[in-house]
Amino acid sequence: MNDFRGVSASEKLPNAGQLAVVYALLLVAAVLIFFVIRYFGENLPAQPLATNAPVTESREIPESHLLSRNQGIDTPRSPSPPRSIPQSHLLSQVLIALVTIISAARIFGFLCQRVGQPRVIGEVIAGIALGPSLLGQFAPDAMVFVFPSTITPVLGILAQLGVILYMFLVGLELNSGLLHSRAQATVAISHASIIGPFLLGAVLALSAYSTYAPAGVTFTSFALFLGVAMSITAFPVLARILTDLRLDKTELGVMALSCAAADDVTAWCLLAFVVGVTQADLYGAVITIILSVCYISVMFGLARPVMIRLLAPLKNTELSVNATAWVLVAVLASAVITEFIGIHAIFGAFLLGAIIPHDSHVARSFRKKLEDVVSILLLPVFFAYTGTRTQIGLLSESSDWWFCSLIILVATVGKFGGTLIASRFTGLDWRTSASLGILMNTRGLMELIVLNIGLDLGVISPTLFAMMVLMALVTTIATTPVLRLIIRPEA
Amino acid sequence: MNDFRGVSASEKLPNAGQLAVVYALLLVAAVLIFFVIRYFGENLPAQPLATNAPVTESREIPESHLLSRNQGIDTPRSPSPPRSIPQSHLLSQVLIALVTIISAARIFGFLCQRVGQPRVIGEVIAGIALGPSLLGQFAPDAMVFVFPSTITPVLGILAQLGVILYMFLVGLELNSGLLHSRAQATVAISHASIIGPFLLGAVLALSAYSTYAPAGVTFTSFALFLGVAMSITAFPVLARILTDLRLDKTELGVMALSCAAADDVTAWCLLAFVVGVTQADLYGAVITIILSVCYISVMFGLARPVMIRLLAPLKNTELSVNATAWVLVAVLASAVITEFIGIHAIFGAFLLGAIIPHDSHVARSFRKKLEDVVSILLLPVFFAYTGTRTQIGLLSESSDWWFCSLIILVATVGKFGGTLIASRFTGLDWRTSASLGILMNTRGLMELIVLNIGLDLGVISPTLFAMMVLMALVTTIATTPVLRLIIRPEA
Repeated sequence: MNDFRGVSASEKLPNAGQLAVVYALLLVAAVLIFFVIRYFGENLPAQPLATNAPVTESREIPESHLLSRNQGIDTPRSPSPPRSIPQSHLLSQVLIALVTIISAARIFGFLCQRVGQPRVIGEVIAGIALGPSLLGQFAPDAMVFVFPSTITPVLGILAQLGVILYMFLVGLELNSGLLHSRAQATVAISHASIIGPFLLGAVLALSAYSTYAPAGVTFTSFALFLGVAMSITAFPVLARILTDLRLDKTELGVMALSCAAADDVTAWCLLAFVVGVTQADLYGAVITIILSVCYISVMFGLARPVMIRLLAPLKNTELSVNATAWVLVAVLASAVITEFIGIHAIFGAFLLGAIIPHDSHVARSFRKKLEDVVSILLLPVFFAYTGTRTQIGLLSESSDWWFCSLIILVATVGKFGGTLIASRFTGLDWRTSASLGILMNTRGLMELIVLNIGLDLGVISPTLFAMMVLMALVTTIATTPVLRLIIRPEA
Repeated sequence: MNDFRGVSASEKLPNAGQLAVVYALLLVAAVLIFFVIRYFGENLPAQPLATNAPVTESREIPESHLLSRNQGIDTPRSPSPPRSIPQSHLLSQVLIALVTIISAARIFGFLCQRVGQPRVIGEVIAGIALGPSLLGQFAPDAMVFVFPSTITPVLGILAQLGVILYMFLVGLELNSGLLHSRAQATVAISHASIIGPFLLGAVLALSAYSTYAPAGVTFTSFALFLGVAMSITAFPVLARILTDLRLDKTELGVMALSCAAADDVTAWCLLAFVVGVTQADLYGAVITIILSVCYISVMFGLARPVMIRLLAPLKNTELSVNATAWVLVAVLASAVITEFIGIHAIFGAFLLGAIIPHDSHVARSFRKKLEDVVSILLLPVFFAYTGTRTQIGLLSESSDWWFCSLIILVATVGKFGGTLIASRFTGLDWRTSASLGILMNTRGLMELIVLNIGLDLGVISPTLFAMMVLMALVTTIATTPVLRLIIRPEA
């Protein structure tokens, strides 16, 4: 979204040796701490698998959840039968849903822009508003009319195709040159900004496991997932905020963007690991990890040079329909491969984007071709799909709201604190470090993608899902005003 | 696709009075002839509604067809259960299907280009090859793996969204100025080229009704639909062929394009009428027609001027994301409205395209934005979806193949003959008239859209559907080589 090459790196960084030692210590400490947390967590009582324990209606049991989550809205008032509906009727329903979703996203996005927030926040809120949290509360019939359960599989596929294409675009944005050129400081800050919230998330899992983990989920999976979910930074929303505040060419902006890019890569690798661990037994997890490493190696070692050579003759000419088609096939095929390996389809799409040089002709063409379809049509469908699964009504008791606030606090403290300390250590001043901390706390759309994967895997309950969606919203909304407060005296 | 303004009109046309009289006589005669055919047809024995009559397996009974056609492939060997499949599994299946569909379309399209045929023919053949006609015959397991019945609703919706967006693009191409400027000759030739195949199609319905009409379909609906299906000319494929042969700026090319555009409008109006008549009783049909006329009037009388005024300030600037989004909402909303009126969704999309001036900035932007997504991703899905419904194996007896040949002959004679006679009458020479006749016989993709609607409505049986698909293929494939034969001596 922004071209930020050519900005000189900060000069007052500590030397590479110091950084490497501290960094290695940090990693080892983090792993040790996680195992300590895990030791305590494994003795915690899990949710009972059988339903003889008194489970309140608001906490769905994963078994029923597993069966029902494909219907998404999961509402007993749906009047339409789930199958044998004529295709033309289904078409009308999908068209009505799309008209509603796109319109709502535009209107809410416009309102958000008016109050100085990035448009994407409005679109997320529009999705939640159309779901059971708002529309379902006040006009359940309208919600069933707009989103009958029959169309949920179709919306789900459109949403996931949207996310796959979107992650491909994010991969295309990834400036690997930037990562290399300022590797030391960036990686140190980035990993600190992941380790902080990751460990705090794992600690939080200790108190959440008995109450909010679905039955049948091991503490290890739950803690790993919560840790990853806490440590996401939304690269694209961050880039948008920096552009809006005219910070994208400043040192702070470049620093934030490169840290976020490093965060992206690390967090998605972690997520792939977590998904592998969650979906399989120990043996399966090892296979998944080996296959993942192989696939990533093949992509960077073999596919990237081939891709660069294949695409080199296309310089400066309009990308042909044929080349476009085959790149699209490659994206979808890579998504299928990672899905089969056992990590998520979006990881494959992201990887394919990452091996295409971000300043190449192909990357630019694809951004131009796909951006409109993805941002106007498909991402709003994803937000609406997320909205139909977000039931804020599940936070029925005050203890739920307290825990939700705790999540927001822990996520912010972990991300902000981790970034602040690492930034200070690499030699940045307090104000820049604090700004960077605030920026890295932006979670946006990426967080929603991760949360949906968690819900699909059954690692988190719908209640925890709703809390985490609120956390993502609050941390993202807070970024712009807080950042303005911090940097204003300087201007 | 081509800008063909500025070519001078042919000068040796008969005067407007003569044309108008002949034209009016033609119309009245056509209507009278249709009623005569209808008189005979209504006394024909229909397919029995109950299944006690010995019905061969190859002729599906519409009742079962109505229930099963949503599963599309309709194969008893499908191993996967139709529901409660996890969304991520569904995603893999859709991704695999998309990769296969896009790759096959590119490869077959490339091969067709190599032998001098338009690419779209290869893509249609690819779709048929992936369906039960070829892949299903030789490797049924592979077909079930690539197109399990679970994903058919999703593919169906993607296909229909593709067709809706495609028809919007076709509407955008529509040069209403061209229609006005050479109105007399164009409309005369165009309508003759519709009346010819329409009446012959209705005559054909007399012999086809007892054997190939699904049970419960009245002769009127059946004959009307067969007539319309015979009289389609594919504007976009025609434009592509003309460009390939470098004829698009010649008088023949301009003539053919304007006739095809007039054909488009007429045929879609006729189709809307037929769909209205088929779906409702007499009262409902009258309501549908009144509402359709109202909607078309509102669109041209009210929406078009508003649209032109709204879009005027956007001249020469990049079309904003916001404007793009709202035009897309308008397209989908118009599709919903026509679907509710009782004519088909694609008619609304076409209409919205038609009210946007074809040489406006918006039209150009939209073509650029949508063309790739539609032609690379969505239309191949439509072809594959059509392919899964095309069971050439249903043409099991030699009588079926004879009837299929008869359909091709009647369609060609009607279209070619009607155009030839009308062209000669308006003063064109024999060679130009014959070339025009051949060109108008191109049916391509448009025919497939109409046939799918017929199958959805249950007006034609799967067997007749397969025959008509073959007819569309043969007439389209024949165009280029035959035209080369006719125009070669001139070059």
